[in-house]
Amino acid sequence: GRKVLIVYAHQEPKSFNGSLKNVAVEELSKQGCSVTVSDLYAMQFEPRATRNDIVGFLHNSEEFNYGVETWEAYKRGGLSNDVVKEQKKVQEADLLLFQFPLYWFSMPAIMKGWVDRVLVRGFAHEFPNCYDSGLLKNKLALFSFTTGGSEEMYTKGAINGDIRYLLWPMQHGIMHFCGVKVLAPHVCFAPEYVPEEKRKEMLIAWAQRLKTLWKEEPINCSPEWYFK
Amino acid sequence: GRKVLIVYAHQEPKSFNGSLKNVAVEELSKQGCSVTVSDLYAMQFEPRATRNDIVGFLHNSEEFNYGVETWEAYKRGGLSNDVVKEQKKVQEADLLLFQFPLYWFSMPAIMKGWVDRVLVRGFAHEFPNCYDSGLLKNKLALFSFTTGGSEEMYTKGAINGDIRYLLWPMQHGIMHFCGVKVLAPHVCFAPEYVPEEKRKEMLIAWAQRLKTLWKEEPINCSPEWYFK
Repeated sequence: GRKVLIVYAHQEPKSFNGSLKNVAVEELSKQGCSVTVSDLYAMQFEPRATRNDIVGFLHNSEEFNYGVETWEAYKRGGLSNDVVKEQKKVQEADLLLFQFPLYWFSMPAIMKGWVDRVLVRGFAHEFPNCYDSGLLKNKLALFSFTTGGSEEMYTKGAINGDIRYLLWPMQHGIMHFCGVKVLAPHVCFAPEYVPEEKRKEMLIAWAQRLKTLWKEEPINCSPEWYFK
Repeated sequence: GRKVLIVYAHQEPKSFNGSLKNVAVEELSKQGCSVTVSDLYAMQFEPRATRNDIVGFLHNSEEFNYGVETWEAYKRGGLSNDVVKEQKKVQEADLLLFQFPLYWFSMPAIMKGWVDRVLVRGFAHEFPNCYDSGLLKNKLALFSFTTGGSEEMYTKGAINGDIRYLLWPMQHGIMHFCGVKVLAPHVCFAPEYVPEEKRKEMLIAWAQRLKTLWKEEPINCSPEWYFK
């Protein structure tokens, strides 16, 4: 059975994001996958990248450099426990599934903090092991999110621009950088502004997609996909 | 004298980001500007968008919706004190200057949390008052940041893509959405990997740019600028 880590960022279990997360847990479990959820708000996950992420002494206590210190700490097993736990989940996962409401053309800060703190140099990448040779290669990622704006507002000529424009930093800059192959995003547009019936259809469509998820080919994560 | 709010995210005062921030404070003060710094790590600024941001009762305590609750709380003066303080600083500022190290093609989580929590609906935008008619119109913004990668790595044909690709969510999705006009970004590429002499030149160039900052024209914040 494949292993899935769902990194989930919504404050409210009854929210539409909560339902999307539940659908994924149910459908993937039914398939025999082993599913782990990092429910970031419930965990009160710390988003700030600080000195607290390093247990014990610093490599250079005169001038704190987060990237250098976490890299050194990773190598000697000196990262804080909450970070190590998440790294273990990532290490074991075949698929990283990010479920969140779009906040300001990006992920909520609590999820960005998960990225900033967990995907440490030495663990997820280490030059020249980045992009196609990133240390998390052979894993898949999928960004599943909801928007406030409608689908029409996220098209090329419209004011928000193509939805793909805003996926570049997340899919390419984060996941591809670590060697992870990216499946097509799953976007539920404006669930707050559609009828209940339509929301149900969205949940069914998500469950439906998950049934054949493992047969999907990753996207070609290059500028052409985003900006063509 | 013009008013500047510097939103600053670095853990280490002695860092190159710290120096860039200090240069801005000195140069702008010398010009007679009134400069305020929100030093996010020093403030231990809370990045998580939670129920704690609303003082007192909720509009709908059955199902927590952060966007709705903060909007309602804003209208009745019921946002948490740390958010209100930042909103006052934003309200008074003519220029919002963001100073940070690029983390994963974006801002550090602590700064994203500032955006998520401070730029509340009703305060910074309220449909149809978004983009050119956003509620923070007549203000300017400038993103000043450092990278790990070199300038060559952030060009069109190179692996990281054009640096402008990753500016879309920040400059357009956040600032333009609120009606703020965006000045050209100020990027210091790979300060950790260049000689001390080159770093000094970068600080001088920044001070130099600031001398004529108020004469600059904002960029044309449309897809052409980013993806042409």
